[in-house]
Amino acid sequence: GPVAAVVRELRCMCLTTNTGVHPKIISNLQVIASGPQCSKVEVIATLKNGQEVCLNPEAPLIRKIIQKMLDSGNNN
Amino acid sequence: GPVAAVVRELRCMCLTTNTGVHPKIISNLQVIASGPQCSKVEVIATLKNGQEVCLNPEAPLIRKIIQKMLDSGNNN
Repeated sequence: GPVAAVVRELRCMCLTTNTGVHPKIISNLQVIASGPQCSKVEVIATLKNGQEVCLNPEAPLIRKIIQKMLDSGNNN
Repeated sequence: GPVAAVVRELRCMCLTTNTGVHPKIISNLQVIASGPQCSKVEVIATLKNGQEVCLNPEAPLIRKIIQKMLDSGNNN
């Protein structure tokens, strides 16, 4: 399996969060569980232009974004 | 916002996929959209022991795993 662990900084990554981003412009979405580095779950979307955007894990739209991304595999 | 882009290799990361992993042992879950690097959507869970596991994006359990991770923020 893949060996490249994703090492992120040992602190919360998101100071502010967005409520939504269109799934089509997301290249990578990370859900980071709470842990020693941060007491809250964090959701970071990397956009196709390379920009990283923090999303509010409690926003209902997150579920839809993730669903859209997962479903997109069925069209290929 | 965060500046550390997650650079992964320009190929599909998952040759085989697991059907499920307990959300409690996941530290980081990535949903990688299809793109030039891979024609299918990929889901990679990094476990708390550092191991990376590919999950089947079409498995219904994925939705539950993600939901559990997102909901865990409410308990902190």
